[in-house]
Amino acid sequence: MNYNEFFNVALNQLRDERRYRVFADLERIAGRFPHALWHSPEGTRDVVIWCSNDYLGMAQHPKVIGAMVETATRMGTGAGGTRNIAGTNHPLVELERELADLHGKPAALVFTSGYVSNQTGIATIAKLLPNCLLLSDALNHNSMIEGIRQSGCERVIWRHNDVAHLEELLKAADPKRPKLIAFESLYSMDGDVAPVHAICDLADKYGAMTYCDEVHAVGMYGPRGGGICERDKAMDRVDVLEGTLAKAFGCLGGYIAGSREMIDAVRSYAPGFIFTTALPPAICAATTAAIKHLKSSSWERERHQDRAARVKAVLNAAGLPVMPSDTHIVPVFVGDPEKCKTASDLLLSEHGIYIQPINYPTVPRGAERLRITPSPYHDDALIDGLAEALIDVWERLGLPLGQRALAAE
Amino acid sequence: MNYNEFFNVALNQLRDERRYRVFADLERIAGRFPHALWHSPEGTRDVVIWCSNDYLGMAQHPKVIGAMVETATRMGTGAGGTRNIAGTNHPLVELERELADLHGKPAALVFTSGYVSNQTGIATIAKLLPNCLLLSDALNHNSMIEGIRQSGCERVIWRHNDVAHLEELLKAADPKRPKLIAFESLYSMDGDVAPVHAICDLADKYGAMTYCDEVHAVGMYGPRGGGICERDKAMDRVDVLEGTLAKAFGCLGGYIAGSREMIDAVRSYAPGFIFTTALPPAICAATTAAIKHLKSSSWERERHQDRAARVKAVLNAAGLPVMPSDTHIVPVFVGDPEKCKTASDLLLSEHGIYIQPINYPTVPRGAERLRITPSPYHDDALIDGLAEALIDVWERLGLPLGQRALAAE
Ligand SMILES: Cc1ncc(COP(=O)(O)O)c(C=O)c1O
Ligand SMILES: Cc1ncc(COP(=O)(O)O)c(C=O)c1O
Repeated sequence: MNYNEFFNVALNQLRDERRYRVFADLERIAGRFPHALWHSPEGTRDVVIWCSNDYLGMAQHPKVIGAMVETATRMGTGAGGTRNIAGTNHPLVELERELADLHGKPAALVFTSGYVSNQTGIATIAKLLPNCLLLSDALNHNSMIEGIRQSGCERVIWRHNDVAHLEELLKAADPKRPKLIAFESLYSMDGDVAPVHAICDLADKYGAMTYCDEVHAVGMYGPRGGGICERDKAMDRVDVLEGTLAKAFGCLGGYIAGSREMIDAVRSYAPGFIFTTALPPAICAATTAAIKHLKSSSWERERHQDRAARVKAVLNAAGLPVMPSDTHIVPVFVGDPEKCKTASDLLLSEHGIYIQPINYPTVPRGAERLRITPSPYHDDALIDGLAEALIDVWERLGLPLGQRALAAE
Repeated sequence: MNYNEFFNVALNQLRDERRYRVFADLERIAGRFPHALWHSPEGTRDVVIWCSNDYLGMAQHPKVIGAMVETATRMGTGAGGTRNIAGTNHPLVELERELADLHGKPAALVFTSGYVSNQTGIATIAKLLPNCLLLSDALNHNSMIEGIRQSGCERVIWRHNDVAHLEELLKAADPKRPKLIAFESLYSMDGDVAPVHAICDLADKYGAMTYCDEVHAVGMYGPRGGGICERDKAMDRVDVLEGTLAKAFGCLGGYIAGSREMIDAVRSYAPGFIFTTALPPAICAATTAAIKHLKSSSWERERHQDRAARVKAVLNAAGLPVMPSDTHIVPVFVGDPEKCKTASDLLLSEHGIYIQPINYPTVPRGAERLRITPSPYHDDALIDGLAEALIDVWERLGLPLGQRALAAE
């Protein structure tokens, strides 16, 4: 049997739908973010990154790099084992304390990624609740969907951010049945925010547990960087807060925070937590340094919002179809997979600007876009350069600009 | 509804079965492995680690630490994005080339862990093969089992390492149906090795694809550290080779290696690969340094085998029930969860020796054991000290020693 033929069929399907992805080979330069080197097929070039999820540039912060270097030098590179077998290292224990404190929860548990925390966290929590009903926002991230699927529990989907629909579904369910409402605080492709209090009101009314993914908010919102729930003073109302260490905190890993019993049960039962090597001490120490810094420094958060507002204003003034967003995410509408890919290619090859196209399945077909993520380190000159480059590309591809674009919003 | 009550019920069940786990809070000391600090409830103590999966001590190798420190300083801490969106960093591209070369395969793909490579790798490969039948060794690791489950494909289980049974199952299946045989090269709890050639013979005969987990073998076997398949000259016969970067290579992450089409398809379709932040450049560079070193240096492999042989000889001579093992794993039989836990506690508190108890579900009930993993850095004096400590603990717990123990083998 020619197995490679099966794989070729699958790959050709992606090519036919213009969904075949080519990764840009990038080399970050500490201290010069968002500038980076692009290892292109034609050689190495300077580029400006406009789509990183190192939202606050913490991956290049001297305190964070310093903690990584110091810890690697003192303790070595890897953890050397699973959490249970020789892998629980002291910086990891300290990181979990730091995260519990960040969210004002009794306990926290670290996983190798935000993806794994959702997948094995949701699956394990739901399995431990007899006959659990899962209520999932329609736009939840793939990691949550996989966790829900893996739980084997019944699942119902509520229309995105639609609490009236959520209430309908809660009302229809058996009151004696355990229920878990899973949602994100900040949806990263549109930049919109969940009505956290309204969801928690319903959870109280119908006796449900709440699970909130704060992956695109931790570090960036709330007085200490606790996320949207901290900003909205709802942290104590949400039962499980989930976050990543790989975006605003600039490192790697994920976590959940909540009650001591819930955390201990996930620690004891979640296969994706138990049967894998623990995070390296140097990663943990670097992350703790980032969290600690962002607890007391609000410069990064303020400058981040200021930059996002400026990008929106400049691109809007230029007539580019900026999609409405309440947060630091700046999506620019394209609406065609081929043009979206070509726009990204032109930006990179002709303007040295790197913005990855966002096509199906990350967003629905017809909603293809460029997703721009300004950081505190994108200065006015870079923003002006971005606007000029986008206008050039828009004109070359015959994409709508000006009044036509505004109407499309 | 009191949700914490559900979690308490689950935790009490573990306590009743003596399966509730307490993690040891350890602090590694680069350059002094296997010595480490134990942050015990009563304060910090010196201990010797005898159960690490940093099998070759590479997590403290100056070249590996040096690469991590140099890369973090130059490129920062995190990758800043998923592989597709800004996360593909140059050291990660180089690591994938290094891994393809290590296994003599056209391509390789890196994941955030060995766990994730199995889970999303097996699930994706099986899903892309129409009506695939999965044939799984009975003792496969949880990460493979979860991958098989997630694929949604039909699965049959062959008795551990029993190729006659595997052939029966292959013969019974529709010859036109795609088949994937999943197994490990080296089983980490017993230290036994799969008959790789015999499995590949059957795969050829019945037109099946083969997937081999080399997690506990890469770096340690074969002239360049390619694993058991390299040692047995079977690397080119296995379709998918999977490994970890977190054990013998001393860092973090996992990978698969194989045909260009298979790797490209997994890259393009595997959710656990697509929707998660890429490994940090410093982790990738450190791992590449470890792999490169172990490709040309065989000192670590030779000394590792020498130390394992010596531990087995000394413990056997002392009458301790060493279970038969063909490899570097030295399991010592206990056969009771309570005594296994107590033995481990006594070793740590009274002898400063850290060996985690291995109880159900990691091994079957009644097969509880201490699992000892000697490294190149465990010298004769440490081995003698281990034997004395074990004898003391065995006597105090009334566990069988001498002839009785040997009979139990
Ligand atoms: C909403 C959401 N949750 C979880 C994740 C996964 O987090 P991580 O990158 O740490 O695996 C992502 C993206 O990466 C995400 O967008
Ligand atoms: C056989 C086997 N495969 C895979 C894994 C997972 O590898 P990692 O620790 O890199 O997640 C392990 C243990 O950790 C294992 O024992």
